Amino acid sequence: MKVAAIQHSCNDNTEHNLETSSRLVREAARQGAQLVVLQELHRSRYFCQSEDAAVFDLAEPIPGPTTEKLGAIARELGVVIVGSIFERRMAGVYHNTAVVLERDGTLAGRYRKMHIPDDPGFYEKFYFTPGDALPDGQSFRPIETSLGKLGVLVCWDQWYPEAARLMALAGAEILIYPTAIGWEPGDAADEKARQLDAWITVQRGHAIANNLPLIAPNRIGHEPSPEAGAGIDFWGNSFICGPQGELLTQGDAHSDWVLTADIDPDRVDQVRRIWPYLRDRRLDAYSDLTRRVRD
Amino acid sequence: MKVAAIQHSCNDNTEHNLETSSRLVREAARQGAQLVVLQELHRSRYFCQSEDAAVFDLAEPIPGPTTEKLGAIARELGVVIVGSIFERRMAGVYHNTAVVLERDGTLAGRYRKMHIPDDPGFYEKFYFTPGDALPDGQSFRPIETSLGKLGVLVCWDQWYPEAARLMALAGAEILIYPTAIGWEPGDAADEKARQLDAWITVQRGHAIANNLPLIAPNRIGHEPSPEAGAGIDFWGNSFICGPQGELLTQGDAHSDWVLTADIDPDRVDQVRRIWPYLRDRRLDAYSDLTRRVRD
Repeated sequence: MKVAAIQHSCNDNTEHNLETSSRLVREAARQGAQLVVLQELHRSRYFCQSEDAAVFDLAEPIPGPTTEKLGAIARELGVVIVGSIFERRMAGVYHNTAVVLERDGTLAGRYRKMHIPDDPGFYEKFYFTPGDALPDGQSFRPIETSLGKLGVLVCWDQWYPEAARLMALAGAEILIYPTAIGWEPGDAADEKARQLDAWITVQRGHAIANNLPLIAPNRIGHEPSPEAGAGIDFWGNSFICGPQGELLTQGDAHSDWVLTADIDPDRVDQVRRIWPYLRDRRLDAYSDLTRRVRD
Repeated sequence: MKVAAIQHSCNDNTEHNLETSSRLVREAARQGAQLVVLQELHRSRYFCQSEDAAVFDLAEPIPGPTTEKLGAIARELGVVIVGSIFERRMAGVYHNTAVVLERDGTLAGRYRKMHIPDDPGFYEKFYFTPGDALPDGQSFRPIETSLGKLGVLVCWDQWYPEAARLMALAGAEILIYPTAIGWEPGDAADEKARQLDAWITVQRGHAIANNLPLIAPNRIGHEPSPEAGAGIDFWGNSFICGPQGELLTQGDAHSDWVLTADIDPDRVDQVRRIWPYLRDRRLDAYSDLTRRVRD
């Protein structure tokens, strides 16, 4: 199965951005990709560099204009698309939501980002209500598609082994992380290198610990701060890895890019036979994972 | 704080092996290390390549001859030592146990390996009773020492994000994994490379997800199979990384080696301020982590 991750820059023109995404999805399909994953909030600038109530105008319902547009492309090309939407659920309740469009254009499912960051330049807690903790263990469930069960998570979730594990235990066959992460321009080169490497490594770690392939598209480009800040240099470096964490393809920090890789769904089963981590989990000693601190 | 990881080969002579460990601990202390970590089961060959009841003769109590020897060296050199012992707890109950010797030679604590592997050449389930799931969340607790709280785990535990997280939540300041892992000699070079890289990457992932430095010593050398097998080529590549997963030092696959690195305990606090993962965990949606499969 050929899969694709797409990275591109965004500007203030949402129509332009959606057109860029569409163009690159077409390119991915032309290269044979059956599953195409877009970066986080690909329709707009990363608007969380400041807290501005007017920005909520960017939000839209699901289904809505963007899912309709992505659905039409999915149907036209016969591919499954993972998109990312600033969702208006009701007045005062907005989410950072990944959506999956089936190849017939229907909405296969959505995932509302569960872990919401908040640090200088990434003021997401102002904009995004965290995804629901659903009853009966229905949170962190993969989305069923014609290409298998997609373990769709979003950005900050990628630092949480818990999220990846819950997706794996629920039968996810691929982990997917649409992302918007970048450097503070003033940081030292060695700090930037550590941050980028950490971002790749922690996700490869989830792939390894759960024996699952993983797709992580991340935006590129400098986006200025609406306030006094230096803005963010989004670091791209989108990547796809296999179920032993092996890098299959990786983008750079500067270019619009369609990354593709071949994923063998049978490989997960093979790897889990020789590295049977899921057999030996100590359920009898994990209950404190639901505590904030074990103090 | 200077820390050391030691890797060496082992043969059938347990006295010789313990002498090798001692010599390298002395070398580490000479280089200024205050904390020295030995590899898993450093006193013997990795005896789990076959299931042989006579091997239980190798086991010893704790405290016992090896903790006494390690304690005497710790006291003499004024260093904290993490050792690894085939523990006889009572007839029929043996553990794969890490021990921590304080710099005054006393036993600071022990950790009995919780996740026990079993695959061809690594028949550990025959030898090792899993560590207890203690009441009141007392499992996966760091060991308090004069150098801080050591999150001591053992080998197969290193594939489980749950173990690292529980140690971090309980205040561990360093993650430590004495290890015995290697290649099946007949495996293809690319498979060997993926396995070694996965071993390093998943542990660096734990360091990143918990913002903790990590020390992982692993044995080296070919050890023949007592049965028809091709034996194991232990892959060494012991390493120490910092709280962003950054590699500080790494050994090769062939050499007795004393790896040292400087760890700044304040760095954990600094990194957690800008990457505050522990703030945003979704305790309300993690309860299924204690299920085997979410089916």
